Amino acid sequence: MSGVQAAAGKKRPRVIVVGAGFGGIRAAQALGKMPVDVTVIDRRNHHTFQPLLYQVALAVLSPGDIAQPIRQILRHHSNIEVTMDEVVRFDLDAKRVYLKSDAVMVYDYLVIATGSTHSYFGHDDWADKAPGLKTVEDATEIRRRVLLAFELAERQMLEVGSHPPLNFVVIGGGPTGVELAGAISDISRLYMTKDFRHIDPSEANVLILEGSPHILGAYPPDLQKKAIEQLTKLNVRTRTGKHVTEIGEGYVMLGEERIESVCTLWAAGVQASPLGKMLGFPVDRKGSVLVDQYLNPPGHPEVFICGDLAHVEQDGKQVPGVAQPAMQMGTYAAKRIGQLVAGRDQGQKGFRYFDKGDMATIGRKAAVARIAWPFKANWSGFMAWIVWLVVHVFFLIGFRNRFSVFRQWTYTYIGKQEGVRLIVGSHDLPGRWRTRLPPQRRPSFRPIALRS
Amino acid sequence: MSGVQAAAGKKRPRVIVVGAGFGGIRAAQALGKMPVDVTVIDRRNHHTFQPLLYQVALAVLSPGDIAQPIRQILRHHSNIEVTMDEVVRFDLDAKRVYLKSDAVMVYDYLVIATGSTHSYFGHDDWADKAPGLKTVEDATEIRRRVLLAFELAERQMLEVGSHPPLNFVVIGGGPTGVELAGAISDISRLYMTKDFRHIDPSEANVLILEGSPHILGAYPPDLQKKAIEQLTKLNVRTRTGKHVTEIGEGYVMLGEERIESVCTLWAAGVQASPLGKMLGFPVDRKGSVLVDQYLNPPGHPEVFICGDLAHVEQDGKQVPGVAQPAMQMGTYAAKRIGQLVAGRDQGQKGFRYFDKGDMATIGRKAAVARIAWPFKANWSGFMAWIVWLVVHVFFLIGFRNRFSVFRQWTYTYIGKQEGVRLIVGSHDLPGRWRTRLPPQRRPSFRPIALRS
Repeated sequence: MSGVQAAAGKKRPRVIVVGAGFGGIRAAQALGKMPVDVTVIDRRNHHTFQPLLYQVALAVLSPGDIAQPIRQILRHHSNIEVTMDEVVRFDLDAKRVYLKSDAVMVYDYLVIATGSTHSYFGHDDWADKAPGLKTVEDATEIRRRVLLAFELAERQMLEVGSHPPLNFVVIGGGPTGVELAGAISDISRLYMTKDFRHIDPSEANVLILEGSPHILGAYPPDLQKKAIEQLTKLNVRTRTGKHVTEIGEGYVMLGEERIESVCTLWAAGVQASPLGKMLGFPVDRKGSVLVDQYLNPPGHPEVFICGDLAHVEQDGKQVPGVAQPAMQMGTYAAKRIGQLVAGRDQGQKGFRYFDKGDMATIGRKAAVARIAWPFKANWSGFMAWIVWLVVHVFFLIGFRNRFSVFRQWTYTYIGKQEGVRLIVGSHDLPGRWRTRLPPQRRPSFRPIALRS
Repeated sequence: MSGVQAAAGKKRPRVIVVGAGFGGIRAAQALGKMPVDVTVIDRRNHHTFQPLLYQVALAVLSPGDIAQPIRQILRHHSNIEVTMDEVVRFDLDAKRVYLKSDAVMVYDYLVIATGSTHSYFGHDDWADKAPGLKTVEDATEIRRRVLLAFELAERQMLEVGSHPPLNFVVIGGGPTGVELAGAISDISRLYMTKDFRHIDPSEANVLILEGSPHILGAYPPDLQKKAIEQLTKLNVRTRTGKHVTEIGEGYVMLGEERIESVCTLWAAGVQASPLGKMLGFPVDRKGSVLVDQYLNPPGHPEVFICGDLAHVEQDGKQVPGVAQPAMQMGTYAAKRIGQLVAGRDQGQKGFRYFDKGDMATIGRKAAVARIAWPFKANWSGFMAWIVWLVVHVFFLIGFRNRFSVFRQWTYTYIGKQEGVRLIVGSHDLPGRWRTRLPPQRRPSFRPIALRS
């Protein structure tokens, strides 16, 4: 405790922030300037800039470009401590948080912002067959699978002289699905063609399967149409209105129809972090906690729920589970805690989401953008893509990351230079791709002629 | 086959290169300019610049900075194909290579350069407790363990108010051990002190255990002495002349003496890739194949063994298992194959290692360098470190990597900026560090006071 506080003879209120995503980091940064002591708890040591994760997955960026240690982000706030741990239970009445390490912490104010994770709609066995994209590890795994699909096809050409069609299936037509699909098309057509001798990576087919009637459901119809046009140019097909019924090794079932797939990715469903249900308050279908205008659950003005974990209604619509609202909620929660600490909490304004718009890229040099601020417009194509670039570099945390991403994009988009196509982790090739011919049929051959 | 060859009516000889380390890549690059068809086989999709791996392990560089896809390195040689596979057996009489994928390949010339791996001297169970440093995955694992050691100490302070001493033990006092130890000292003293509130990372102790009488055994005695001086300045202690007898969770036994260790790393022994013994020729103690002056094993002038897998004697001494000789052997093997293909193989010179010297860094801004070319000198300290920087940036493959490493070093060494301290992979904290107190003794406390 500093001398000033000791002289004041008053203990500073303790705020615990659980989760260091967009909501938690913004809350912590704002609390760092207030007369409170803050503990940030996260399972990971880093904050992840999720909107660019798909670029790590498709080997444009490195994990270090878009993730940064939480301690590093908050190091200059001397009233903040960070601990790498996991919450296993809350006792809101006793104002206690129970951690996986057996430690118990007491708080005066609590901010919960643990976000969301994939939902496989009850088919948890699909997780292995179609990985989703929420963490740096997920991105590395997706990269591994996409790159291995090409490696295996090349090897099969050497081994048996043919390979299954390079069908990539992305399940889910929201922004993440569209961005993944566009990026797969890009790397296969632009960057990988010179690398292989026996296969033609540009023959890759990418297919988006969306269960609802439209891709990019949150966007206005004219942008949906533009998105489909731009995807078609990239040789990405979309199929909507039918739900996937099964995912297996090398295929996806759409009702009775079997779609061959060398690599299946999941971008369909999300569910709130399980901590939401654990709190015991009413939750919505996705497990997000229904909070009031101050982001408090019923009866707990000292508890704030932010980001994807919070279900906030505004003008009859739910505030979407994306980065912008999460950041605004984090900042709001911190401000509100400041008011409560100062005893100025009567008659203050509730949270209001200030909608600046939405954006999704479609491969390189195209995007759709619903701009809501500083003017209203629906843009698509190259200009929307430029806006996307500028906004994303601007919002990245840390100068080093901004510079690094900017440099990498310059290489990739202007210089057509390769990205970071490393396969890290298991290099073991899945058994299903090892064409086990009976011994007498095994080809014993000189490597086949190189493509000229 | 190209028109010219078809007209000549002659099939081009097939060269198979196994392993894409320094030896294999150099051989392939030289063969890429010759009238042969080349197949490069490697288990991984990337070439790793091993001399800088310790900087990935200690979070200065990203994996993408020092590793590059093999296909990308060799893409401009249209006579080279790359396949990601693993050799399981050779049949040198039938000139065949059997692969894990069940494919069989026939060659005219064979270059084997599969390098070396860690040796735990028969204690394979030590591998989990003290990871070594040969691959990008190893580097990520070491980074995870070093960073987690600090995270756990901080958490233990929150939980029980004390933590075990931050002892890091590096087993092996060769260049890798010295570089790892110096880098651990660096990050703990320079970059991590502002990140923690309850522990002081600069209190970290680093200890090098070397079984032989001297660290850096391959260097002249005056450089060994300088190295110890420079290590002492970094608070790195060295103990020599005693062998480790046991490695356990949280400790290392040196005979009867128990040394506590929050993180133990292995840099002691190497052994040649198991393919060496599989060939059936005489091998040395480490499993490297005894080759003649043309790098051929007995009776097989069409088979070349390069790099760590080859035991080459020159002037009564063994050529060391480091990058320079491996590269020179690769280039020599390719040149020799060119001579054999052209029928100009009589009376040609055998391989001779051209020794330019050796270098090892000792933390930031110090190194030892035994310079053998273009002049002879033993340097230590800052100037040696500058030489080390220049040489390593120069030898990195690819402009992008060179630029990226240069930029990162500028940040790190001049700007004192943080590196890439991400923990990727399992964030689960090892059980041994979870202080399991009986329930009645569990502390239920407000987080302890922050350090002012």
